[in-house]
Amino acid sequence: MMGGDFAPAEPLKGIQQYLDEVVAPAHLHLIGDSAQLETLLATYTIPASTFSITHAPDVIGMQEHPTKALKEKPKSSIAVGFYLLATGKIDAFISAGNTGAMLVGSLYSLKPLEGVLRPTISTLIPKENGGTGLLLDVGLNADCKPEHLNQFATMGSVYAQAILGISQPRVALLNIGEEEGKGNLLCQAAYPLLKENKHIHFVGNVEGRDVLLDKADVMVCDGFTGNIILKLAESLFEITRAKGIMHDYFDRFDFEAYGGTPVLGISKPVIIGHGIAKGNAFKNKILLAQKMLEKDVMQKLAFEIAS
Amino acid sequence: MMGGDFAPAEPLKGIQQYLDEVVAPAHLHLIGDSAQLETLLATYTIPASTFSITHAPDVIGMQEHPTKALKEKPKSSIAVGFYLLATGKIDAFISAGNTGAMLVGSLYSLKPLEGVLRPTISTLIPKENGGTGLLLDVGLNADCKPEHLNQFATMGSVYAQAILGISQPRVALLNIGEEEGKGNLLCQAAYPLLKENKHIHFVGNVEGRDVLLDKADVMVCDGFTGNIILKLAESLFEITRAKGIMHDYFDRFDFEAYGGTPVLGISKPVIIGHGIAKGNAFKNKILLAQKMLEKDVMQKLAFEIAS
Repeated sequence: MMGGDFAPAEPLKGIQQYLDEVVAPAHLHLIGDSAQLETLLATYTIPASTFSITHAPDVIGMQEHPTKALKEKPKSSIAVGFYLLATGKIDAFISAGNTGAMLVGSLYSLKPLEGVLRPTISTLIPKENGGTGLLLDVGLNADCKPEHLNQFATMGSVYAQAILGISQPRVALLNIGEEEGKGNLLCQAAYPLLKENKHIHFVGNVEGRDVLLDKADVMVCDGFTGNIILKLAESLFEITRAKGIMHDYFDRFDFEAYGGTPVLGISKPVIIGHGIAKGNAFKNKILLAQKMLEKDVMQKLAFEIAS
Repeated sequence: MMGGDFAPAEPLKGIQQYLDEVVAPAHLHLIGDSAQLETLLATYTIPASTFSITHAPDVIGMQEHPTKALKEKPKSSIAVGFYLLATGKIDAFISAGNTGAMLVGSLYSLKPLEGVLRPTISTLIPKENGGTGLLLDVGLNADCKPEHLNQFATMGSVYAQAILGISQPRVALLNIGEEEGKGNLLCQAAYPLLKENKHIHFVGNVEGRDVLLDKADVMVCDGFTGNIILKLAESLFEITRAKGIMHDYFDRFDFEAYGGTPVLGISKPVIIGHGIAKGNAFKNKILLAQKMLEKDVMQKLAFEIAS
């Protein structure tokens, strides 16, 4: 409840929206300063039976060093959240707080799924034809090995199937050049692995000019490249808004509206949101976590990686 | 004269425009099928004293394998052009033909400047505030070492000074994360070299969200990342046009209008254009080659790299 630039008011608004819209809502555990939350809750019409409050008096600031802050602030809402998740008190954990702390918590409080070499984070890509693609890794793994890209492909494919509802996701390698054998050393070595990967429908290389086109549903790359693309795409939204360029297409670059990004390859859903998240984004994050649990995404990932 | 989708008509239009606009034009060597060129020239008002024709009966197609085609077609306009350049018959070489053949020719017909580890190609980046930045490498060097990025920085800085007219170019490392020590292994190792580089004004890391902002005049990255960004930016122009999103800012993503990109780090100007180049782009390519010669860009590059 304490994460993001507008906490705890916007998280609470999101909860209100979630409870208003969803027929069978999950039980929500609100982690944060209980006095502050209770005062604020008095102004909402949220039934007491739908939530529990877990008191966490500390907050990890957006600029704090993740590992250091997690260690020094065991009573911060993020540290408490990971404790509850790791001990099975909650099934999924959502925050728009310090991204680094959320990633460090995901990697070190939880176990990676059996056989997962590197957990990964992804972003949704608004295709120019109205479709939505998935790009991963977008920053958790700056340096990758070919076998990492190959696992990102499998994990991205499972996620696209279960969450985006794409029955046979087309998986592509983000590369420079179209043919097999092109690209940097990483892509040259990853291509044959992807071609042999029986868990995915591999459609070959896509280039930078294809990222926004509907050439593939899942695009894999190292986290350096993916993060540059993600942040460039985010800046496009801001630039078009600042210049008054209004168009449906650029509305879809409002990544904040999507909710958040899950960490894939770990044992439980962790959803990381933008610091600027508003109520609607918090609602979407809760919905995403719920869908990941309902669709057994973690079990499916574990099965595909292990088999 | 035979390079690009609309050759030789558009190259000739560009020459006409160039001669109409420039007070002290260079002497132009037109390389291509002489019969075809002479027939077409009869319909233009280009004074015979301003050009010479060098007959080259062959053409390297846009889809041909660069190295193979250059070897098997010594009488192609590109092969003849590099022969004339290497033997000092011409001072600069311009083509909108097969990009790969132009790059192979640049690297193997000409010498790299003394001390240059890897020649590089760049692209202009339209900044949201109206300014123009330089991004390099954009595809010639898919895998880079830290010392390559450091040289790209020096070469980009010289180019931005001489050609873009920026007196003290701000040079940045394209990275994920703002602080020193962030990023992939390449960036972590390149940062201290850039910091110590006395030939540049290093301003630190920029991120993907800064690419289109005015944070730096020159941004260096490996050719894989740069090529992805270049092609993504090119696709933005096409997507906005296709959707009827008209705005001055996206007009500036029409990379075709810029003319072409020079290969930096070799002994003479080679300007590579887009296949779809029209007359105006050819005019701009000639102007760029002339400016590179007039501003002694090659000598300045050689001096900065050697000292």
